Amino acid sequence: SRSLNLAVIPGDGIGQEVVAEGLKVLSAVLPQDVKLETKEFDFGARRYHATGETLTDADLDALKAHDAILLGAIGDPSVPSGVLERGFLLKLRFAFDHHVNLRPSKLLPGVATPLAGQPEIDFVVVREGTEGPYTGNGGTIRKGTEHEVATEVSVNTAYGVERVVRDAFARAQARPRKKLTLVHKNNVLTFAGHLWTNIFNKVAAEYPEVTTDYVHVDAATIFLVTDPARFDVIVTDNLFGDIITDLAAAVSGGIGVAASGNINPSGDFPSMFEPVHGSAPDIAGQGKADPTATVLSVALLLRHLGYEDEAARIEDAVSADLGERGDLPTRSTSEIGDTLAARVAG
Amino acid sequence: SRSLNLAVIPGDGIGQEVVAEGLKVLSAVLPQDVKLETKEFDFGARRYHATGETLTDADLDALKAHDAILLGAIGDPSVPSGVLERGFLLKLRFAFDHHVNLRPSKLLPGVATPLAGQPEIDFVVVREGTEGPYTGNGGTIRKGTEHEVATEVSVNTAYGVERVVRDAFARAQARPRKKLTLVHKNNVLTFAGHLWTNIFNKVAAEYPEVTTDYVHVDAATIFLVTDPARFDVIVTDNLFGDIITDLAAAVSGGIGVAASGNINPSGDFPSMFEPVHGSAPDIAGQGKADPTATVLSVALLLRHLGYEDEAARIEDAVSADLGERGDLPTRSTSEIGDTLAARVAG
Ligand SMILES: CC(C)[C@H](C(=O)O)[C@@H](O)C(=O)O
Ligand SMILES: CC(C)[C@H](C(=O)O)[C@@H](O)C(=O)O
Repeated sequence: SRSLNLAVIPGDGIGQEVVAEGLKVLSAVLPQDVKLETKEFDFGARRYHATGETLTDADLDALKAHDAILLGAIGDPSVPSGVLERGFLLKLRFAFDHHVNLRPSKLLPGVATPLAGQPEIDFVVVREGTEGPYTGNGGTIRKGTEHEVATEVSVNTAYGVERVVRDAFARAQARPRKKLTLVHKNNVLTFAGHLWTNIFNKVAAEYPEVTTDYVHVDAATIFLVTDPARFDVIVTDNLFGDIITDLAAAVSGGIGVAASGNINPSGDFPSMFEPVHGSAPDIAGQGKADPTATVLSVALLLRHLGYEDEAARIEDAVSADLGERGDLPTRSTSEIGDTLAARVAG
Repeated sequence: SRSLNLAVIPGDGIGQEVVAEGLKVLSAVLPQDVKLETKEFDFGARRYHATGETLTDADLDALKAHDAILLGAIGDPSVPSGVLERGFLLKLRFAFDHHVNLRPSKLLPGVATPLAGQPEIDFVVVREGTEGPYTGNGGTIRKGTEHEVATEVSVNTAYGVERVVRDAFARAQARPRKKLTLVHKNNVLTFAGHLWTNIFNKVAAEYPEVTTDYVHVDAATIFLVTDPARFDVIVTDNLFGDIITDLAAAVSGGIGVAASGNINPSGDFPSMFEPVHGSAPDIAGQGKADPTATVLSVALLLRHLGYEDEAARIEDAVSADLGERGDLPTRSTSEIGDTLAARVAG
């Protein structure tokens, strides 16, 4: 019999609530012969306040022993900005070499969007996850004085760019439209921009069936609101990917339904799946959070582990549920989870 | 009698066409006693192809002798990406210390927006113009090999951040809502982020009437499509400002009406005014470009030089024109210019 050995990190704020529903749906969809084992980890603000720790080497060892990680959300106003983000979230993505940060956007029928005219939206962003401006390189001199200088260094390597560009081409090749757009700012950030553009063009030669396109990041934000249908697969760097995927989530049903995977395709380390939204302390503990983004992250997790049918069943359940929402009264976090669990089981 | 000594850089593509209309409206609005003198400069792709030059020291000296600069657009597919952007546009902004890059967004009644429900949009972005990831610091080693490393260094100084933050507070203080939002990514880019945040908070103490707010750049893109009314004045760094102002333009009437000023508030160097859009080679020479963004940039130019009434007359003319567009057949670039010139003169 098979097993799925899952590390669960509920984290802060609504993370707790949404992860519970993600697990509910996961249990409901998994085949009987798969033994689900979960181990919960207490990372986040509580652990930080209690011990001063964010993520230790022993923690990394413990996490490594799992097939995958499901994360709710990390971050709390009681912790200085950056401490948990750099000390936990980014530390984990870097330590486990999660270089493919996968963020699909699909506007489902009947789902509200701030855009007029209900445009077609169905694309996936492949965001680089271990380089660019996110490395933490840089520093500060003369801190707090009128002569302070603070630098942030975006580090881009041929190795790091090529592997994520290859991943994106393979994904584009596997989709019906077979189109890949590179998003960067190569007319200003010319050092990194040329590296990205050259590697993109080099790999493109190996994928003659994939239509390629280049769009500056500023123009990409325009297209995301005026012509999102032009995008099929997007590949971009860590910071640009962060920015455009929040916008992509906003236009395609909102941050309540945006899922993501922090993927290590080699399998050397477990991949991590998490909603794009944060811990939303303002609505935490009230049963108001939408668990859909976490449930869709569970679908990405299952697909990554080879459970394609189960992933599709979750996505179908979510589509059906979202399509009916307009007619329903507002439901609580656990009511939405119950509905989705019933649908995938049924 | 007064004089206005203007350097005019039509540039590439539609730059030529829109600048002609900007000058038409400028001539029409200026009081009789103001002597307008213009000198045209041939910067852009033609000059680059003819001489290999983008902007020489002699050019800078010649430009410096003017009260202000009106720019159309620079950039052409025949020139490698980055050459004119870094070699002309950014070189000029840096050489003339254009540290306040001012980009207002206002959705006028009757103007089309991709957003549903015609939200209220009336804010101004104060984008830092001489620092951040735009400095060109960084480099490449092992270029073209599988071991290439390319870096981009974002440079942020207390001096550079404080002056633009002060400018933004003063602008917020002068507006009815008196609200200023700092947009950054201080939970990830912690070195630069802390510098920006600390200076922002320090200056805030001197402006007790200004309500302050902090939003991460990724979340800012969400608010720009779901709740743009929350913004009054935004201050942000060079790259974030580039990205969010394109999105801001898209939601508030499109890039055809987005104006900008590259301002040196000290007056040591002439400030430069330009539409946010580019040279749009696909529609160049066809009389299809909307000159409104350039005309509004002329209004910013006039306000900067103290011609407040004339600036307001241009803005009123544009409002009236945009409000009527829904009922009118499509007009050419020069027809729109004629209409606006007639309105401001009348
Ligand atoms: C919380 C933060 C570190 C994170 C990021 O910037 O990657 C978040 O915004 C995201 O997109 O997952
Ligand atoms: C063309 C480019 C250098 C420029 C920028 O990035 O500043 C443009 O996008 C703008 O916003 O004015």
